[in-house]
Amino acid sequence: MEQHKKIIVVGGSAAGPKAAARARRMDEQAEITLFQQSPDMSMASCGYPYYVGGFFQDRNELLGSPGSVRDTAYFWNAKKIRTHVRTQVLSIDRKRRQVEYLHLDTGERGTAPYDKLVIATGAVPRKPPVPGVDLAGVTTLQSMQDADFLRKVRDEGKIRKAVVIGGGLIGIETCEALHLAGIQITLIELLPQLLTFLDNQMARLVEQYVQTKANVILGNGVAAFLGDKGHLTGVRLQNGAEIPCELAVIAIGVAPNAHLAKESGLALGPTGGILVNEFMQTSDPDIYAVGDCVESHHLVSGLPVHAPLGDLANLQGRVAGENVIKGNVARFPGTLQTGICKVFDYGVGSTGLSQQAALRAGITDLETVVNVGPDKPGFMKGRRLITKLVVEKSSGRILGAQVLGPGDVGKQVAIWAIAIKGKLTVDDMAGADLPYAPPFSLAIDHSIATAHIMQNKLRGYFRGISAGEFREALKSHKPMVLLDVRNPEEYEQMRLGVGERLIPLGQLRARMDELPQEKNVSIVLWCQVSLRGYEAARILLASGYTNVLVLEGGLAAWPFAREK
Amino acid sequence: MEQHKKIIVVGGSAAGPKAAARARRMDEQAEITLFQQSPDMSMASCGYPYYVGGFFQDRNELLGSPGSVRDTAYFWNAKKIRTHVRTQVLSIDRKRRQVEYLHLDTGERGTAPYDKLVIATGAVPRKPPVPGVDLAGVTTLQSMQDADFLRKVRDEGKIRKAVVIGGGLIGIETCEALHLAGIQITLIELLPQLLTFLDNQMARLVEQYVQTKANVILGNGVAAFLGDKGHLTGVRLQNGAEIPCELAVIAIGVAPNAHLAKESGLALGPTGGILVNEFMQTSDPDIYAVGDCVESHHLVSGLPVHAPLGDLANLQGRVAGENVIKGNVARFPGTLQTGICKVFDYGVGSTGLSQQAALRAGITDLETVVNVGPDKPGFMKGRRLITKLVVEKSSGRILGAQVLGPGDVGKQVAIWAIAIKGKLTVDDMAGADLPYAPPFSLAIDHSIATAHIMQNKLRGYFRGISAGEFREALKSHKPMVLLDVRNPEEYEQMRLGVGERLIPLGQLRARMDELPQEKNVSIVLWCQVSLRGYEAARILLASGYTNVLVLEGGLAAWPFAREK
Repeated sequence: MEQHKKIIVVGGSAAGPKAAARARRMDEQAEITLFQQSPDMSMASCGYPYYVGGFFQDRNELLGSPGSVRDTAYFWNAKKIRTHVRTQVLSIDRKRRQVEYLHLDTGERGTAPYDKLVIATGAVPRKPPVPGVDLAGVTTLQSMQDADFLRKVRDEGKIRKAVVIGGGLIGIETCEALHLAGIQITLIELLPQLLTFLDNQMARLVEQYVQTKANVILGNGVAAFLGDKGHLTGVRLQNGAEIPCELAVIAIGVAPNAHLAKESGLALGPTGGILVNEFMQTSDPDIYAVGDCVESHHLVSGLPVHAPLGDLANLQGRVAGENVIKGNVARFPGTLQTGICKVFDYGVGSTGLSQQAALRAGITDLETVVNVGPDKPGFMKGRRLITKLVVEKSSGRILGAQVLGPGDVGKQVAIWAIAIKGKLTVDDMAGADLPYAPPFSLAIDHSIATAHIMQNKLRGYFRGISAGEFREALKSHKPMVLLDVRNPEEYEQMRLGVGERLIPLGQLRARMDELPQEKNVSIVLWCQVSLRGYEAARILLASGYTNVLVLEGGLAAWPFAREK
Repeated sequence: MEQHKKIIVVGGSAAGPKAAARARRMDEQAEITLFQQSPDMSMASCGYPYYVGGFFQDRNELLGSPGSVRDTAYFWNAKKIRTHVRTQVLSIDRKRRQVEYLHLDTGERGTAPYDKLVIATGAVPRKPPVPGVDLAGVTTLQSMQDADFLRKVRDEGKIRKAVVIGGGLIGIETCEALHLAGIQITLIELLPQLLTFLDNQMARLVEQYVQTKANVILGNGVAAFLGDKGHLTGVRLQNGAEIPCELAVIAIGVAPNAHLAKESGLALGPTGGILVNEFMQTSDPDIYAVGDCVESHHLVSGLPVHAPLGDLANLQGRVAGENVIKGNVARFPGTLQTGICKVFDYGVGSTGLSQQAALRAGITDLETVVNVGPDKPGFMKGRRLITKLVVEKSSGRILGAQVLGPGDVGKQVAIWAIAIKGKLTVDDMAGADLPYAPPFSLAIDHSIATAHIMQNKLRGYFRGISAGEFREALKSHKPMVLLDVRNPEEYEQMRLGVGERLIPLGQLRARMDELPQEKNVSIVLWCQVSLRGYEAARILLASGYTNVLVLEGGLAAWPFAREK
């Protein structure tokens, strides 16, 4: 009689259960056992901020599939998977192919043999190495228990002031959750910008928006958590400032929890994550690893990255679950580090490489544009989208896109993610056939319009200047002619006020004599979003001006102070 | 001195103005003239149903770019384009390269010379060749004047009953618009299904939903419009039934308005549209044609198609506008016939080939799946999506997708449209890296989950049966074991009632003895959406049953009557 395969999965959050369930569907006879250190399993951990923020009331919604909480009984009855919660796997004996485990409540120890092992030990939140980090009131939002604690804070309604430490995805989501709980927030980020997956101009636009909801402090870290009788009373910053608060949430990122793998002699990568091949197999062919504990491969840069994202955890779990049974038949291709977050009423997302990330990866053959436009026609209540597109200049191949705004960001990021996956170029996207009807998009979808602007730029029809470059040029008092080509009413409402002159596009041809005769003078021009700016640039170029620059994204994407 | 290029554009709706504006940006000196038969220009004609339906109040919103209605003054001031409205181009003298035109109001005729000509004469609504079609109260929704008329109907609120003839995109959008105006609707379609770009099962699901808002009659055409004193009083159907109504909107499709091109001796294609190459150039190299009057090339089937869609008109206009100035540098690659429409609270969209369209194109190497799932987690108020995916079986290449439901259909269709554009396979999509956070999607996006199901099918992990095939099998009294694997509460609420037995998935392993011993018996099983059905199938296959079929899309995508 055939021996049944023994599969052990270490970790029961996202990737582990997925691997176990997939393995079960591949082999009804396999003996599948899952060890989980925490009391819960299959937690929708990305949903924690929305539970804390009151989007829904029942914590079990984070633990459920239709009709049932995913507990030990569920896993046994529906999937014939044996699960041990509150059980830590202490070590892996690779020679004997067995794990040693410890029941955390009973203290009981045991060993369990495997034919194939899947490590899904997740990630651990980083904590700043400063005094007071263990005070009551200092927490992370990483575990179900953290979520329970912060939800209790919301429900009790006693806490007035909180500090969120870290301006990444989780930090910003936590800001929103606590803001919705009626708590006054200070957000602290050590780096000079929020959301480091965004380029600076884009991050500044997010920051301007978040400032309307929370006090944002950049370029400053926590020096100490201050307390009284074991309870948090405030946070001292590195610059000496003290911020009184009763709650502090640390969200400065996570590190791969690769301890068990490392102790077992498995190879780790330069990011500290477990090294795996495209089959999710570690340096030991009988051991696979999936989820936040592994190192991934970036599909555009080719570089190793740590990408602790729930969707990738699921995809990797599915691949490993198939491969432990079928042999290496399924592949995880790598990541674009596609991410998105809700920032109050904005969506903010990114896929592929930002300009910063491309430069860090040594890619300099770059062109970028910033495009601003609505997601739908104005008559259908279109909402603004701002996209920064990054392409390989020589080939036009799309390398990355960042999108933000109150508009339909999820769709835009999805479009670019698939475009990068398909190795599409700007020309491909310029002729894309996307679903159009007024309730869903513009006749020329925002993504296609972005490709059109890029195509114009690559074909030399105009040159752009980024907001950052323009600000530098202004600071250095470089001689420039500055031109705002909007209407007087728009100018009265809002303007840069940097010495520009106003010549509405419709009057430009008739008022060319107001411009200097010298044709090689530097001209920078803009409108609200840059469409009229582009048309004006074409007119000036046709008149012989050789040095005409359009401010990318116009006033709508200007991330610095304005006169008005 | 250089002679300025003379560009004439015939048609001022969507593609024509786009071509003219693009040509202007390519050449500031060109003399660009646009002739438009109707009094309006640059109409957002896809927005007519939403104006009629009361989504917004000001008709000028259909004619505007930010801040200004696109009239003759606008085109001259902003774009230096001379426009002649209410002016018909009567003929093209290709030898002399000039057009003859007629001012419809003054009766004045003239000629205008061109170096390059762009034909953008659009499409004309088809009308059924039956008596009474000219009665007052019989209209189309094709022109701004039609929209004005129907909006007046809404605002006056006198009409109680209307018949909409044609169950395509425009017909269904018109249904919604009139329904919102408080009018009782009967929708008549000559063919046996609505929305012929959908496969039958998907179309039936739309029909079931539309039936809750309007009376839908399929497989029946109009025999006559009935009237009294010149006013519509009813519609007689081909089966003799009479439907009293005061308003009838004809929406049985459009035909390319290729009259001018044909009279000028330009080649037309088999669809009746003007034949153009990828540069949008007709059989006369000095004449380009764009928009609803041209024939396009289907990117998947390679077949000629007439694709009268507003987004394509804009893309084609942009290409032609560049090429008339720069020579043939820009390309329009062809179409996936991507389309979407709002059907009350549903979105319904499609891209690439349906199964029906693939078969019509002679493509038989096909596999399909139907997937049902939410667009977001339940705790974020996810809404249902139903997707039918069509792939090339041998290669896994994606050929087409149809998506419908209250969920985020626009994003799903966009994802598939780009995937097809990039020639992605099911394996590519199964490992796609899409933006995930609970406010935006599931951890495994609906599109990726659909690819996973298809991957399982292509790898032989399960076999499916479509709703249509299953109904046929039931009708023919084929011996089958029928198994519903949901919970008893779900069964009580809703069930097929075709003789199935209920064995919840969690009990299946323990109750295998209730199934026949004969291992080659046909078993058809299902659940709500087919996930549990798939797991059940894996269990049965592992027990040696060889003939196990999962009902695709489960009860959620069952388009026929149920017991309950």
